[in-house]
Amino acid sequence: MQAAIDEARKGLEEGGIPIGSVLVHAGKIIGRGHNRRVQQGSAILHGEMDALENAGRQPASVYRDATLYTTLSPCAMCSGAILLYGIKTVVIGENETFLGEEQLLRTRGVTLDVRHDQTCRQLMDAFISSKPELWNEDIGR
Amino acid sequence: MQAAIDEARKGLEEGGIPIGSVLVHAGKIIGRGHNRRVQQGSAILHGEMDALENAGRQPASVYRDATLYTTLSPCAMCSGAILLYGIKTVVIGENETFLGEEQLLRTRGVTLDVRHDQTCRQLMDAFISSKPELWNEDIGR
Repeated sequence: MQAAIDEARKGLEEGGIPIGSVLVHAGKIIGRGHNRRVQQGSAILHGEMDALENAGRQPASVYRDATLYTTLSPCAMCSGAILLYGIKTVVIGENETFLGEEQLLRTRGVTLDVRHDQTCRQLMDAFISSKPELWNEDIGR
Repeated sequence: MQAAIDEARKGLEEGGIPIGSVLVHAGKIIGRGHNRRVQQGSAILHGEMDALENAGRQPASVYRDATLYTTLSPCAMCSGAILLYGIKTVVIGENETFLGEEQLLRTRGVTLDVRHDQTCRQLMDAFISSKPELWNEDIGR
């Protein structure tokens, strides 16, 4: 989770939305990412999507044994990507500033570990307070 | 739908997976895309995701009035993106070679128009026959 938080901070330093994610397989980080809406004008590069993209093309067997770490509860798009690739375990920094599709993921058999991490929460609280319009854009509101 | 099929053919000509998509708002195409797994080594650029990305950052109001055209039934990831952005109408070329998360989309109030288009189907049938491993990779199998 610390690596995901480092990614979130990196995003913040770049002027972006402070959400980070890493994909871990066999004890190694195979993809790191952070939200790039601002930096790349991207509508799809949420932190989790960026981590998946940076992990590159992987066989199904890798995803099935991988764990996705994300500083924030995954939205519908990122949850869909988790389901597409059959990632079975997701570790979530916090789900208090935004609650994603956790119920759908659980229904489909994904194990979620919500950490209620105060650093993750403080990053989002401060960001949402300072740039509410940008945050709403990121979650389609 | 013809513009989405044109995108699928473009992808095929590039050596990629023949799935195309366009996002239409107020009668105009605002984003065109096709699957770029092969071309860009991408794990996230399905046709629909590529169309959303190429449409750029849009306010929620645009997505809500937009229609997404896709040559193939949208997978979990692309369906999640549709839900994230509140796209209310999706026109689907065919759902016979692959059935995506249509039930989930309908449950969430998205209107689907499945065209059972034979051109879309033939493109996928031929592709899946010739490169089954690449196709399985694209859908996480």
